[in-house]
Amino acid sequence: MTSIELPAAADFHVHLRDGSMMETVVPTIKKGGVSLVYVMPNLVPPITTVEQALSYHARLQAIDSSVTYMMTLYLSPEITPAVIAEAAKTNEIFGVKSYPKGLTTNSESGVVSYTQYYPVFAAMEEHDLVLNLHGESPSSETTTVLNAEETFLPTLFDIHEKFPKLRIVLEHCTTAAAVEAVKKCGPTVAATITAHHLYLTIDQWADNPHCFCKPVAKLPSDRAALVKAATSGNPKFFLGTDSAPHPKSAKVGTATGKTAAGVFTQPYAVQYIATAFDRAGRVDMLKGFACDFGRAFYKIVEKGLGSKDGGVIVLSKDPGVVVVDTIGAGEGVVVPFHAGEKIWGLQWKA
Amino acid sequence: MTSIELPAAADFHVHLRDGSMMETVVPTIKKGGVSLVYVMPNLVPPITTVEQALSYHARLQAIDSSVTYMMTLYLSPEITPAVIAEAAKTNEIFGVKSYPKGLTTNSESGVVSYTQYYPVFAAMEEHDLVLNLHGESPSSETTTVLNAEETFLPTLFDIHEKFPKLRIVLEHCTTAAAVEAVKKCGPTVAATITAHHLYLTIDQWADNPHCFCKPVAKLPSDRAALVKAATSGNPKFFLGTDSAPHPKSAKVGTATGKTAAGVFTQPYAVQYIATAFDRAGRVDMLKGFACDFGRAFYKIVEKGLGSKDGGVIVLSKDPGVVVVDTIGAGEGVVVPFHAGEKIWGLQWKA
Repeated sequence: MTSIELPAAADFHVHLRDGSMMETVVPTIKKGGVSLVYVMPNLVPPITTVEQALSYHARLQAIDSSVTYMMTLYLSPEITPAVIAEAAKTNEIFGVKSYPKGLTTNSESGVVSYTQYYPVFAAMEEHDLVLNLHGESPSSETTTVLNAEETFLPTLFDIHEKFPKLRIVLEHCTTAAAVEAVKKCGPTVAATITAHHLYLTIDQWADNPHCFCKPVAKLPSDRAALVKAATSGNPKFFLGTDSAPHPKSAKVGTATGKTAAGVFTQPYAVQYIATAFDRAGRVDMLKGFACDFGRAFYKIVEKGLGSKDGGVIVLSKDPGVVVVDTIGAGEGVVVPFHAGEKIWGLQWKA
Repeated sequence: MTSIELPAAADFHVHLRDGSMMETVVPTIKKGGVSLVYVMPNLVPPITTVEQALSYHARLQAIDSSVTYMMTLYLSPEITPAVIAEAAKTNEIFGVKSYPKGLTTNSESGVVSYTQYYPVFAAMEEHDLVLNLHGESPSSETTTVLNAEETFLPTLFDIHEKFPKLRIVLEHCTTAAAVEAVKKCGPTVAATITAHHLYLTIDQWADNPHCFCKPVAKLPSDRAALVKAATSGNPKFFLGTDSAPHPKSAKVGTATGKTAAGVFTQPYAVQYIATAFDRAGRVDMLKGFACDFGRAFYKIVEKGLGSKDGGVIVLSKDPGVVVVDTIGAGEGVVVPFHAGEKIWGLQWKA
């Protein structure tokens, strides 16, 4: 199979930033074969009120109104059950995103912080909002970036047990352990898988800043488990690219000495996925993973979304395309994943 | 204890490069409290003949003749038993350094390549040259940078079993498994431990190019095992900094897009060690690790080396010093380990 027609894809984990970077990134959504995106709230400052979310939504619409933008709030003390009730009444906000504290404290204190939000989770369950979990424990004497996801899984089980009707997405899962955990949970628990984690292991990012992200890519056995889950047809696993644009100067460390975490995949989102599925010999499973399962989990039709959501894309293995070296210009120039490498091609059907 | 007098240290694993970088680095050897260095042969092209080694030795002497330079050859098909016999007659060459192939092939082919050098190892055993092992297996579907050292250990055992009198140094060991392996072997097997591996785990280098090296720093439990081995008083473990100067542009990836592997510690070699030993409450074990055990293993006195080797250094916790931001200038500027951080001070005793 060297060509395939699909409905436009949905990407349930994107970073579109704000300001000039937003201007650079938003036009690449459709280019990547995607008509609906679930937009992460980690701006500076983060999106913690309904008003902020609606204002951000309007800024995105102003750049490309043909895309459906679904918004999520940043879990923080400002998010109360009253805010959840208010958010649920909008047509734009569909979830709350939880980020780990990022502090080098022990994992127990991390778990305590989730308990603190149980009243919020109860309100989310009541109002049918989705909890988006960045599932990593803070570093400690026993936890590093390697097992930060696996050590978080008991917290996922805890929240799911306490709130069985709360829809939860374990975002950008990266390990065989996480795949198994999500499969073990009830149907209200799903996971997004990125494009880049279908390709990377630690060996690729160790010396390549453009492949470094959080959660970090792990072992070949973990990558194999992700490819298997993504191509399995299990509707618990669907596309969330976690595409994260950083200016090149933040990636190669010239700005701060450190490497910013994030891989930029937005402009070729579905093409990277198609290429990976093709390598696995499972292009037939692309539609479920990239188009259907996420929309079903988020109840797109049921919730009256997706009036603009649609269109048909055509993916082709031959001749394919070569990923450009950079997107954007000047200080905001971004290096896409696998720059210079050949991947599948994509066109929108007229 | 805030001040300590020691004999000048010996550093049994250094990269001094050639050309202008050599001019920058060699003057920092004494600055770091070291009077004797064991010089790695991975120049471009590598040092594979006695003549090359002696010529390189002369270039180093020309920069600072007060340092004792011990040379090692790069294990490659050019190294024959006849070359070993020739090397052993010199007063400058004391070993042969083995690098892994660095190819993404399976580990079995790596092991086969060591067998190919058994006649060389036999000659080295006969002529009492030291085998310096970079102990990592090539990447494969089951081997990554994380377990590359551990999966190499059976090869160490093999060589030691076949050549029990051959002195072997497992260079820059980074794992609890390697420490245990070296302890298990007979007295002809030792290991060097770097300064930076007493500090780093994967979490520190993941987003910091200046802390990225090969073998990569691993888990907190591995770091704890290295600190314990270095401060244990076991003479099988001694200082080899693996100080590896790379121009800043190669570390932050602006030159190639990739991060060069290596941490630069030469100018503060003993000070980093003293600071780490102090944190472990074992400054009393510094002399054995940094001054005595390596010299004993390499038979410095017995072999008639060390006529220049000497002097006394004074290390002091207070007020200490702050690591400079860069060493060198222009294109060759190098960022030292823990730039901007406070460490112990060092002076040579008049």
